[in-house]
Amino acid sequence: MPAIDTDRFLRDLQELRRIGAYKTGVHRPTYSPQDMESRRWLMERMAEIGLEPSIDGIGNVHGRHKGAGPHLLAGSHIESQNHAGWLDGALGVVAGLALARAGLPVDVVAFADEEGHFEGGFLGSRSIIGDLTEEEIDRSRNRTDGTPLREALAAAGLAGKPRLQLETGRHKGFFEMHIEQGTQLEGAGLRAGVVTGIVAIWQWRILIEGMQDHAGGTTMAERRDAGLAAVRLLAMLDQEMPRACGERSTWTTGRIALDPGAPSIIPGRADILFQFRDVEMAVLERMERCLRACVQESNRRERSRATLTAVSKATPALCDPAMMAALDAAAQSIAPGAWQRMPSGAGHDAQYIARVMPVAMLFTPSIGGISHHWAEDTKEEDLALCMRILGDAAERYLKA
Amino acid sequence: MPAIDTDRFLRDLQELRRIGAYKTGVHRPTYSPQDMESRRWLMERMAEIGLEPSIDGIGNVHGRHKGAGPHLLAGSHIESQNHAGWLDGALGVVAGLALARAGLPVDVVAFADEEGHFEGGFLGSRSIIGDLTEEEIDRSRNRTDGTPLREALAAAGLAGKPRLQLETGRHKGFFEMHIEQGTQLEGAGLRAGVVTGIVAIWQWRILIEGMQDHAGGTTMAERRDAGLAAVRLLAMLDQEMPRACGERSTWTTGRIALDPGAPSIIPGRADILFQFRDVEMAVLERMERCLRACVQESNRRERSRATLTAVSKATPALCDPAMMAALDAAAQSIAPGAWQRMPSGAGHDAQYIARVMPVAMLFTPSIGGISHHWAEDTKEEDLALCMRILGDAAERYLKA
Repeated sequence: MPAIDTDRFLRDLQELRRIGAYKTGVHRPTYSPQDMESRRWLMERMAEIGLEPSIDGIGNVHGRHKGAGPHLLAGSHIESQNHAGWLDGALGVVAGLALARAGLPVDVVAFADEEGHFEGGFLGSRSIIGDLTEEEIDRSRNRTDGTPLREALAAAGLAGKPRLQLETGRHKGFFEMHIEQGTQLEGAGLRAGVVTGIVAIWQWRILIEGMQDHAGGTTMAERRDAGLAAVRLLAMLDQEMPRACGERSTWTTGRIALDPGAPSIIPGRADILFQFRDVEMAVLERMERCLRACVQESNRRERSRATLTAVSKATPALCDPAMMAALDAAAQSIAPGAWQRMPSGAGHDAQYIARVMPVAMLFTPSIGGISHHWAEDTKEEDLALCMRILGDAAERYLKA
Repeated sequence: MPAIDTDRFLRDLQELRRIGAYKTGVHRPTYSPQDMESRRWLMERMAEIGLEPSIDGIGNVHGRHKGAGPHLLAGSHIESQNHAGWLDGALGVVAGLALARAGLPVDVVAFADEEGHFEGGFLGSRSIIGDLTEEEIDRSRNRTDGTPLREALAAAGLAGKPRLQLETGRHKGFFEMHIEQGTQLEGAGLRAGVVTGIVAIWQWRILIEGMQDHAGGTTMAERRDAGLAAVRLLAMLDQEMPRACGERSTWTTGRIALDPGAPSIIPGRADILFQFRDVEMAVLERMERCLRACVQESNRRERSRATLTAVSKATPALCDPAMMAALDAAAQSIAPGAWQRMPSGAGHDAQYIARVMPVAMLFTPSIGGISHHWAEDTKEEDLALCMRILGDAAERYLKA
């Protein structure tokens, strides 16, 4: 078993937590000064360990192992959702550092914008596998404030830098440690989860256009109320999605923006962000047919017109059997009976890396399942335990 | 018939339109530099005519007639909704100027914040009748950006100024000319509307609190999705309100804000602005019972808790029979057969002034019924015609 320094691992996590600290969590949106500070902090840690650090034109930080292979790749993302938790992403990156520090032949990576602050999302892991075009970078904007991605990259000092591509054949596999972001482990009294596959997120935008008008002068019969059409369509989806979904599917309306959003004005426009997730393509396709049918039915019934746009449609990723077997064996040796296999309901960088090499993920429990919120947390003893499992699994898989 | 200078009346309207011009409309939110410029412009016009101009501590502009009574009060508000029309409010103020310029014994008034940029709404007309307390001013905030009302008053140079109260017994009645903000006149091919009563607006805020969480890690069964609870409650209101409403009632959801409003986060909070309007107290009370029952039912069904708060509950106002008779006679003399009596679906300053004196309103047609939008408009010949009707009616009522 490799000599994992779990104290140092926990200290690194606590140090990184101070960058962009917000209540007990962090606020490090992609390319913000806080995010860039965390990337510089990471490069210093990489250099200390003897890795060769670099940052590329999309913000990916890479620490290259200088010794002989076969190599592993390990990491995650380092930016956070707005006012969110300290471990989401950061945990996997710092776990990568701990593997390299233990002397394992590991390249460490922190991808950029897994959290999707910018249109497209997963910019870093998509860029490193050659899935992100210059044209998409030209088009993409910040989803919160509309800043063009090019401007954000320039402000972060990344304009003009080349984008790193993974070296074909260099890596035997990618390990990503991550918090569960749910309550399945906690609910079952378990301390580690070996991930079997990662759901795909199909993200949609529904734009409804009616006619902005005075809320008193316009009779109910005359109205083309885009907000009301939005409520009816979303209520229809609430009814119909259960008929189309799979056992573990999720679907979420993250935003409903009514324009202009004033008390006495009939909304002329409604802008909706809707997504669903599943591990099976067949289920995803069934849910898309359901969504399209509901939008079509809305357009038959309503006087406000709904338009559906696919924002992103990822492919579900299955984890590698040999890597899962290494994680199973490590978990059973270090935490006998206190672990399980489970799918990942959340999207992760590993789903893109899976297109070019075998991948596996290890989940730590999330206290109360809280995630994408500053109160997100995991017990330190669970973090340390999972770090030891990951180290053991990495060694087992390298020898396999 | 008094000598109304309709050319000058139209020129004044066009001049005022240039202050805060936005496309073919205006952007003059309450206490903005543009709003304050329009109030100064108005005081200059008042002084030219021989009225004694003043501005008070809530922004009401008043032009006092120096001669003998009995006096009339005439006016409306001068600020606009955001990026809205050039006539809404401004028309009634400039019509008051035209009455005074024709030599009628008229005090002219421009109230502040009829449009409700600040919580409470109708600040000016409520202040002038003694319905607005200092405590309410302390509490009120801008509904768009949260600026405290006190700060906005200070920035506009109004802090510390006394607030004007109407002089008991001075006025025989209040005339407010306004655009219809609907299509009833246009649809019937008519050019003027004599208003019979003004609906009351009952404005509500519904706050739904669930639990912000990750949209992938949290199963559908575990969620406390405040946005979904909002959609279900609003869909219930869409079903139930028609059973409680009157023939001419309206109800409107102006805003649905989901917090944090991101694609991959289950909303932890939904903030809804909901209002309904009617001329009959019995109907308003029935609609309130329906709303309360729906919120209660939502709390029985959902795991996110909904809280209902009354933001404002106005009293419907009926127009004065003698003033309406004067408007009827003037309309029949100047536009025979081209006018009708009608209720006002929108709220107006007159509904508060009606608590202390007789009131009446004259509606001009709205092209396409468009209102609270920069494209709002009325034909110049209709504006001029209604101005002559108002002049004739004011004289008839003063003699009655």
